[in-house]
Amino acid sequence: MKRSTVRLADGRELIYFDERDDAVRQGPDLRELPPPPPASELRYDPLTDEWVAIAAHRQTRTFLPPTDQCPLCPSRPGRSSEIPAYDYDVAVFENRFPSLSDRVADPVGGYPAITPFTPARPGLGRCEVVCFTAEHDTSFAGLPPARVRTVLDALADRTAELSTLDGVEQVFCFENRGVEIGVTLHHPHGQIYAYPFVTPRTRALLAAARRHAEATGGRNLYADVLAAERADGERVVAANDLWTAYVPAAARWPYEVHLAPHRQVPDLTALDDAERDAFGPLYLDVLARFDRLFGTPQGTPYISAWHQAPVHADRELGYLHLQVFTVRRAVDKLKYLAGSESAMGVFINDVRPEQAAAQLRG
Amino acid sequence: MKRSTVRLADGRELIYFDERDDAVRQGPDLRELPPPPPASELRYDPLTDEWVAIAAHRQTRTFLPPTDQCPLCPSRPGRSSEIPAYDYDVAVFENRFPSLSDRVADPVGGYPAITPFTPARPGLGRCEVVCFTAEHDTSFAGLPPARVRTVLDALADRTAELSTLDGVEQVFCFENRGVEIGVTLHHPHGQIYAYPFVTPRTRALLAAARRHAEATGGRNLYADVLAAERADGERVVAANDLWTAYVPAAARWPYEVHLAPHRQVPDLTALDDAERDAFGPLYLDVLARFDRLFGTPQGTPYISAWHQAPVHADRELGYLHLQVFTVRRAVDKLKYLAGSESAMGVFINDVRPEQAAAQLRG
Repeated sequence: MKRSTVRLADGRELIYFDERDDAVRQGPDLRELPPPPPASELRYDPLTDEWVAIAAHRQTRTFLPPTDQCPLCPSRPGRSSEIPAYDYDVAVFENRFPSLSDRVADPVGGYPAITPFTPARPGLGRCEVVCFTAEHDTSFAGLPPARVRTVLDALADRTAELSTLDGVEQVFCFENRGVEIGVTLHHPHGQIYAYPFVTPRTRALLAAARRHAEATGGRNLYADVLAAERADGERVVAANDLWTAYVPAAARWPYEVHLAPHRQVPDLTALDDAERDAFGPLYLDVLARFDRLFGTPQGTPYISAWHQAPVHADRELGYLHLQVFTVRRAVDKLKYLAGSESAMGVFINDVRPEQAAAQLRG
Repeated sequence: MKRSTVRLADGRELIYFDERDDAVRQGPDLRELPPPPPASELRYDPLTDEWVAIAAHRQTRTFLPPTDQCPLCPSRPGRSSEIPAYDYDVAVFENRFPSLSDRVADPVGGYPAITPFTPARPGLGRCEVVCFTAEHDTSFAGLPPARVRTVLDALADRTAELSTLDGVEQVFCFENRGVEIGVTLHHPHGQIYAYPFVTPRTRALLAAARRHAEATGGRNLYADVLAAERADGERVVAANDLWTAYVPAAARWPYEVHLAPHRQVPDLTALDDAERDAFGPLYLDVLARFDRLFGTPQGTPYISAWHQAPVHADRELGYLHLQVFTVRRAVDKLKYLAGSESAMGVFINDVRPEQAAAQLRG
C-alpha cells in the first residue's frame, strides 16, 4: 500500500491510501477556501456527567449536493472537489465542518465556564472523512474484498496516528449509510472521530468489563460473551476461522449484528495480517444480507461502528468489535428512538434476536 | 375531577378523568377482542449492564390509521373505538400492544436465560395510553390550561397507582408528537411506561446527584443547576412564580427546554395545587414557541418527558422536571442520531443553547 499526504487549500491534511505502489497523487488543491471554522465547544452536563459538543458552524454544512457537485468525487479538469487527485483508492481528510478539531488553542486564562456547574473547553480532537472509493454510485457493500482490506488498513493507520494527538482519548471509526440516518453526502464514505474523552457508551462497556474481570479473576467479558454466542449458535449469522458475526442476545435494534475477531485485541492497529484479510469477505457477506433483508433498491440504511479500547485507559479491558445496525424495522417502517429510548435510554426491540438472525441467515 | 373506571372487552382497564362531576361514562365496550398479547421479554445486556425489552408482538401494532378509524376518538353509534364512551375529557387505558405488562406470571422454575451472560425475565410493568382530548384534530398545544391541569392530575394519579404495582421501580410519563418521531397515531395522546427497573438515564442522573450531595454536604444537584440558570438568565425562555423553563447550558438537542418547579419534589404526586395550576400556562407558552420556531403548519415534532424519582430508591436525590426537545434542527432539516450519538452516546449539537433560548424567547 502506498501512502501519500497532501495539504488542502485551507491547510487541512489529506492522505491517499493506494493499492498500487506506483500511484501518483501529487495534484495541488486549486480552490480558494476560507480558513477552517472556529473550534466547537465542549460543555459538561453536570446532570449526566457527560460532555456535549456544541458545533454551531455545522448548521451550514454541505447538504445532499447534486451528484456533479459531490465533494468526495475526485477532481477533474475544471472542477475541484475536496480530493485534488483525478483518481484514488481510499482517501482520508480532515472534515471541513468538524465537530472536533486540533486547530484550537486554550485561551489565555482558561476557557470560561458557562455556569458554575457547566465548565466548557475547546472541542479538541479531530474529525476525518474516509472515502472508500472514487466511484460515486456504489456502496461499501459493492467494494471488492481487497478494497475492504485497504479501508481497514487506512482506519488502523488513522487510529494509530490520531492516538498520538495531544488530548485524544478515544478514536471512533464509523459509517452512517442512507438518508434515513441523516447522511448528507451520498458518495460512499465513513468518518473518524478522535474524542478528547472516553465516550459514555465506552465507559459503560468498560465498567461492565471491569466488574466481570474482578468477579472472575481477570476474564474478559466480551470474550466470554462471544464464546457463549459461538457455542450456542442460534444467533450466529456467518463466521469464518478468525471472525464471527452474530446478533447479540439482548440486541437493541431490530436488525443488529456484531462482528468480532476470535482473538482479543484492543483496537484495529493490533489486528494481524490474516485477521485483516479475513474481515472483508465476512463483512461484505453481512452487508449483502442486510441489503437483501428488505429488498429496497437503494439498500438498507445502517450505522456501522467500530468499538475500540480507549487510547490510554483500560486497554486490557477492551475488545475490538464492529456493531452494525439498521434503523429499518420492516420494509416500510423505520425504528424511531422515541420517548423510552431517547429520554430514558430503554430500548424496545420489536424483533426477537433469534428471528433477526434466522432472517439474516436465510 | 370525576374518576370512573371501566374494563375493555379484553379485560384491560380504562380510566376516565372528567372535569365535570356529573359526567357519566358507563358505556360498555361492544367489541370482540382477542386476549392481550403475550408478555414481552426483558433481556439483560451484560456488555452495558442494561435491560432491553423484546416486544415482538408490537411489530403488528396499529400504524397511522385513517381518521375515521382512529382508536383514540370516542366511540359513536356503529363504531367502537378503544374508548367506549361517546365523549370524554381525559382517558387513560392499558396499551393494547404493550412493551411492559402486569399480565404475566413468572414461569415455574424461573425464566430461562438466553445465554449464561444474558438472563431474561418477563416484561413486568405496565404501558398506558393517555388521551388528552376527545378532539382528533388538535394537539397538546391547543388544549386550554384547565385541560392541562386535568392531564397533570391524571398523570399524578397514574404515577401514584402504578408505583404500587409489584415490581415497578420507575414511572415515566411522556408524549411523542409528530410522524418525524415515529408517532403511529395522530390523535393527541401521551404514554406512561411503568418500568420494573430504574432506567439507564435516571441511573446516570442519580449517580451524578449522589456525588454532588456527598461533595456538598447534601445539596441537591438539580436544585443548584436550576438556581444557576435562573441567576444567569441567558438561557431562560419563560418563567412564572413557581416554574422556570430554560435551555440547559449543555443541551443535547438543537431545541431543548427543561421545565422545573422551583420547589424540589420527587414526582408529580408531590406537586401542590398551586404548582399544578401554574404549570399549564407556562408549558402551553413553551409549546407555542416551539410551534412558531419553524412555521410549519403541522407544528413542531417533539418528545416531552417527565423525569421522576424512582419509586423506591433514591427519592431524595430526584428532582421532578420536564424535558422537551424537538428532533428538528431547521425548517427543512431533522437532527438524526447517527454514529456519534447512537453508538457512542456523544451528542453533537449544531445550535448554541444561548441562540436556541433567544430564538424561543423572540
